[in-house]
Amino acid sequence: MQDLNAVQSLAVWAVLVVSLLGIGYAFFIRSQILAQDTGTPRMREVWGYIKTGANAYLSQQFRTISILIVILTFVLAASVFIIPPTTEAVERFGSKEAATLWVAIGRAVAFLMGSLFSYAVGFVGMNVAVEGNVRVAAASRKGYNPALQVAYKSGSVTGMLTVGLGLLGGTLIFMVFGIAAPDALLGFGFGGSLIALFMRVGGGIYTKAADVGADLVGKVEAGIPEDDPRNAAVIADLVGDNVGDCAGMAADVFESFEVTLVSAMILGIVLGDAVAGVMGDGQYDLRFIIFPLVLRAIGVIASVIGNQFVTTDERKRNAMAAMNRGFYIAAGLAIVASAAATPVFMVDAAGNVDWRPFFATLSGVILAIALDKLTEYFTSTHFSPVKETSKASQTGSATNILSGLALGMESSVWAILVISASIFTSVLIYSGEPAATQFTAILYGVSLTGIGMLLLTGNTISMDSFGPISDNANGIGEMAGLDKNARNVMDDLDAVGNTTKAVTKGIAIGSAVIAAVALYGSYFTDVNKVIKQMIDEGAKGIELLSSINVAAPDVFIGLLIGGAVPFLFSALTIRAVSRAAAQIVNEVRRQFRIPGLMEGKVVPDYARAVQISTTAAQKELISLGLIAVMVPIIVGFTLGVEALGGFLAGIILTGQLMAVFQANAGGAWDNAKKYIEEGNFGGKHSEPHKAAVVGDTVGDPLKDTSGPALNPMIKVINLVALIIAPIIVTIEPGNPGVIVAMIICVAALVWAIWQSKRESEALKEIAQAPASAD
Amino acid sequence: MQDLNAVQSLAVWAVLVVSLLGIGYAFFIRSQILAQDTGTPRMREVWGYIKTGANAYLSQQFRTISILIVILTFVLAASVFIIPPTTEAVERFGSKEAATLWVAIGRAVAFLMGSLFSYAVGFVGMNVAVEGNVRVAAASRKGYNPALQVAYKSGSVTGMLTVGLGLLGGTLIFMVFGIAAPDALLGFGFGGSLIALFMRVGGGIYTKAADVGADLVGKVEAGIPEDDPRNAAVIADLVGDNVGDCAGMAADVFESFEVTLVSAMILGIVLGDAVAGVMGDGQYDLRFIIFPLVLRAIGVIASVIGNQFVTTDERKRNAMAAMNRGFYIAAGLAIVASAAATPVFMVDAAGNVDWRPFFATLSGVILAIALDKLTEYFTSTHFSPVKETSKASQTGSATNILSGLALGMESSVWAILVISASIFTSVLIYSGEPAATQFTAILYGVSLTGIGMLLLTGNTISMDSFGPISDNANGIGEMAGLDKNARNVMDDLDAVGNTTKAVTKGIAIGSAVIAAVALYGSYFTDVNKVIKQMIDEGAKGIELLSSINVAAPDVFIGLLIGGAVPFLFSALTIRAVSRAAAQIVNEVRRQFRIPGLMEGKVVPDYARAVQISTTAAQKELISLGLIAVMVPIIVGFTLGVEALGGFLAGIILTGQLMAVFQANAGGAWDNAKKYIEEGNFGGKHSEPHKAAVVGDTVGDPLKDTSGPALNPMIKVINLVALIIAPIIVTIEPGNPGVIVAMIICVAALVWAIWQSKRESEALKEIAQAPASAD
Repeated sequence: MQDLNAVQSLAVWAVLVVSLLGIGYAFFIRSQILAQDTGTPRMREVWGYIKTGANAYLSQQFRTISILIVILTFVLAASVFIIPPTTEAVERFGSKEAATLWVAIGRAVAFLMGSLFSYAVGFVGMNVAVEGNVRVAAASRKGYNPALQVAYKSGSVTGMLTVGLGLLGGTLIFMVFGIAAPDALLGFGFGGSLIALFMRVGGGIYTKAADVGADLVGKVEAGIPEDDPRNAAVIADLVGDNVGDCAGMAADVFESFEVTLVSAMILGIVLGDAVAGVMGDGQYDLRFIIFPLVLRAIGVIASVIGNQFVTTDERKRNAMAAMNRGFYIAAGLAIVASAAATPVFMVDAAGNVDWRPFFATLSGVILAIALDKLTEYFTSTHFSPVKETSKASQTGSATNILSGLALGMESSVWAILVISASIFTSVLIYSGEPAATQFTAILYGVSLTGIGMLLLTGNTISMDSFGPISDNANGIGEMAGLDKNARNVMDDLDAVGNTTKAVTKGIAIGSAVIAAVALYGSYFTDVNKVIKQMIDEGAKGIELLSSINVAAPDVFIGLLIGGAVPFLFSALTIRAVSRAAAQIVNEVRRQFRIPGLMEGKVVPDYARAVQISTTAAQKELISLGLIAVMVPIIVGFTLGVEALGGFLAGIILTGQLMAVFQANAGGAWDNAKKYIEEGNFGGKHSEPHKAAVVGDTVGDPLKDTSGPALNPMIKVINLVALIIAPIIVTIEPGNPGVIVAMIICVAALVWAIWQSKRESEALKEIAQAPASAD
Repeated sequence: MQDLNAVQSLAVWAVLVVSLLGIGYAFFIRSQILAQDTGTPRMREVWGYIKTGANAYLSQQFRTISILIVILTFVLAASVFIIPPTTEAVERFGSKEAATLWVAIGRAVAFLMGSLFSYAVGFVGMNVAVEGNVRVAAASRKGYNPALQVAYKSGSVTGMLTVGLGLLGGTLIFMVFGIAAPDALLGFGFGGSLIALFMRVGGGIYTKAADVGADLVGKVEAGIPEDDPRNAAVIADLVGDNVGDCAGMAADVFESFEVTLVSAMILGIVLGDAVAGVMGDGQYDLRFIIFPLVLRAIGVIASVIGNQFVTTDERKRNAMAAMNRGFYIAAGLAIVASAAATPVFMVDAAGNVDWRPFFATLSGVILAIALDKLTEYFTSTHFSPVKETSKASQTGSATNILSGLALGMESSVWAILVISASIFTSVLIYSGEPAATQFTAILYGVSLTGIGMLLLTGNTISMDSFGPISDNANGIGEMAGLDKNARNVMDDLDAVGNTTKAVTKGIAIGSAVIAAVALYGSYFTDVNKVIKQMIDEGAKGIELLSSINVAAPDVFIGLLIGGAVPFLFSALTIRAVSRAAAQIVNEVRRQFRIPGLMEGKVVPDYARAVQISTTAAQKELISLGLIAVMVPIIVGFTLGVEALGGFLAGIILTGQLMAVFQANAGGAWDNAKKYIEEGNFGGKHSEPHKAAVVGDTVGDPLKDTSGPALNPMIKVINLVALIIAPIIVTIEPGNPGVIVAMIICVAALVWAIWQSKRESEALKEIAQAPASAD
């Protein structure tokens, strides 16, 4: 930190303290929740099943992916030795050799740290959600506000842990690596994203396999109600809410939070370098890297304060208003504080204050709110799109499905326009920047927009986790037979939770795109940095990359292939859910044949259904993870760095479109069914309702598995590209090592796709037993 | 044609003669068909209804769009005066003034010619299909081969007319404009594509509105069989097959045929110019433009010969084998003849033969066959994907839908890989080309791949039209109560027709992408031509476009917006079908209430349902057409030519993915239902069958309206961009004329989207009458 001035040094330490405070606050609330009442013995019994299942899932998942993580840690460290160290690293660590060694260690450690933090957020988030569920149910007997408090606070643990750990990691890396931080930050981002991908995909498959499987065999075949204790998959379904909606979402948002910080810091260093170069004083200008850290710290404090206002009284009983109040107070505080921080941190040596970063951040806050409103418009029962889809159910499932598909596609268009507008805001803000630094400055602006979007992550995650927690509490309440007053409280919280959940999805996806665009910009800058260094060292026949020119046929091919990846990923995840659901169906059918079970005399073997879901989800993980890691490597080494740039652009584009399309279509179908259940178009059990149930089932894997999995996938692939780009540039074409590596990669990819496409034995079994299905 | 040598001149005249022969041959077969027997009075009665309805639709459509065509003709002519004439045009017409005038007239006339030809192909194709329907039904009483002959030959009329007119237009323009041909060819391509867009969208909405509407109210509500004469929409449904599947498809493929020729000629002139520049002899090298014309002529002759072999004997009764024989004979002939033509036409002044264009063409033929096989694999009942979707129907509609969605998404990935491979083939073929001409040469190779793909358009369209013709014949047979033998013949032809129809869709979409990629290349070249001319004339502050750099934020925004357009288009067309179907539902309900109608004593008012479908489809046309034309104009003038380039890349990418996804998902659902009807998984009327019917209905608008509409849309937008790009470059930013024009464009776009989104009164009416639906 040799280039920091006194204020900046102080600020970095202050940020570190704030991040630790955030983590401490999370554990403080956690202890508060654990002190609450856990209700009746029956409630504790159901809760016990869920707890065991959820923990079993996450530990199994940890074992599955830990091998991959260990291998990747070594590969990452080793890969550093192939490329020349950056000038920044040499400057930081004295010599080339020391730089290479430290970067290798730093990247590997950062990768481990990113993975572990991401995992910890998911694990603790899920754990506290499971603890919260039963206590919300218990508190609902006391009143509305007590239940709201427990539910929201349980969510806050995850929220505060997310922001605390995300900020801690980034700050620590910066403190150790200084101007060489980008080298290690890449590892940090990659670790977090990869784990998030696993948590999203695994959790998504788990929860929907259990959900769809339980419904198909219970409701459809056997004609018993949802959540009936005789259904062996009912606990797996409840566990699914926790591992999918809580752990998956928490890891996902943690990763977005982390990657926006990573991209802002990488671009901040490049911009500082460029500005310093223009100013010619030779010193790195580190204000561009300090500012995002300060913003994040402000966000953490604002969230903590805002969360105190989430309370309602027993007469009003308005959970939504309470959470919105908390959010808007936090937002207001954060904006004011950011504005106040600007003259302190965004000031150059001559004393000129640069307000543009503040406005870029502000545009991110606005973008988050705009995406909120957009998602709400397309997926809430209060607006015409969902009402139209409900209406379309009157003429059957087909028209319901068509209406939802059209709605999802359209919503995706508006979301991309809003995101485009926010990127364009940075273009406008930095239109006056000198040509030499304009490109980097605009991208830095985009990365600050990403920071702005996730400024209030503490609140956002609290609101999001609130959803599945209330949902599960309601499920426990139903199974434990709580009284009507308590159930009413939980029904209301559950409904509010559906809205908050949908809204967060919009932010998660939007931030993924913004982060990816910023990373994409650093891809270009990064590649050129390596090429420039090689040219400086006398390499011949190599030229700076002047653009990612999509008019060039090979780059266009990259674009086409990149655009196809989200389609492949979605197809495979949808199919994975069907496959896993089929296994559940077979298991529940088997248990139904156990004498005495249908009469309620024998308790079903819940653990076995949990075990099947767990194993099935794990099986799919590795192949999908391999696809995400292998495809960019193969494209990059086969078609070159420029085509790899085209490939990334393609992935971001269709990834965004498909993610929003699937999330909103699914959300709309879900709520179209709810709208009918509220008594419209014939109400529950009418023909339109049956039609809407079909739409809801179609939407389940789209909105909870394949759609959300695209967020971390976009970023994993972008980060892999960023890590391998210098190697592609450095290594000569036709190098035997590369050829061998390519053969291994292609083989791994083919295996992964084959693995994901195969028709499982379970599906065949179902096919052979159609008679029993009627 | 001052730069042509004797062989080349002769060749151009020969090509002209071949194109006229193709047209003549089409009319010759038509007269043969008209001479056939039209069957019983009852058959003629049904046929009469269809004929009247189909003609009414196309004349109404002609009136609707003729105003737009007239306006656009003038706008196109006027726009030429804004930009400086190309050096080629000046060279061809002597002076700048003369060049501008001639280009203005030429572009306007070519636009009219393109529109009229496209319309003529659609009109005649539909007309002969309607004439063919009843005669196939009549011939089926005589035997299998007679029926096959009539059906295939009816399709051949369209096929030969398509290739004849397409070739005629291109040749005439080249003869008149010589090296200035690209200026006029743009108009020709635009006219054809725009009409194709209208025919596809209008026909697609018509046919699916009638189909879905008739089914919903007839089969679902009233419980009467499909094609029951008491259903007022049944004739509209049969008319729909003709206006959608025949007229729409014919215009679409005509346009692809035309645009691939246009792009090959534009790039051929640029390449000839570049090669001549490198060789320094100052003369244009026109062989690159003659070769595609010759290839096309070879294709026409090969198709005529191949068609003679489409015959089967009464014992074998194998229509598919007969058509395949015709196709493969034509393909073999065409390849041999193209190889033979290469040493004659692809030879430079020094006598060196250039075989690379031949290989690029060959790769196109292979691509067509590969896409065929791929489409067949994903949509035919003989392979595992459709079987899996059928199997998924056992657990209900939801799993059937999910399986089809996953299948469609995955098929899209493989299709894009095949297309990428064929583009990469051109990259490899021209890897030895000198750097100065390599870029153009590769794109020229891509355009020849497009030519190769559509080399056998004569056969392809014959096979495609065969589908709806047999389908309609079967319908007439059913309504007229023909005997069992005749029905068996038609059932078989109908089934074969389903396969040929699906396969052609794959080629149409693939060729759209290849043509778009080639056009995309000419976009880049074209813009730079104008900029270079401006620099030569002393313009300051303007630079050559070195790339379409997607790493630049504004270009990335262009990419994002472009990628969103196919999603918007699909959403709007799906919704348009629902809206039009709702109107049909209301009308049929109304007529059911007429006393005596349900008892069969009163004939329903078929004309009224036809009229409603017609009007509804027309209503949607203008707004969707406006979107296609306005969006590139707005993006181009707001964000500039480079961002417009990013925009085009986005459209091609997601356009391809969404088109194949929707077409194949729809095709698979259709055949999954058929597979069950063949007696698998419970057969007709079983629960799995009901589930599969839902999938089929969902797939209908996807595969016949929104998916196919993307082909012409991609090209319309590309051509609009090509036409406006020089204007964007020429006009200074902030020009008041542009600002006014922008305001008009934005207003038109907003109106169009609002118009397409509005909830119709008919839908509201349906919503108010749920009780009668039960």
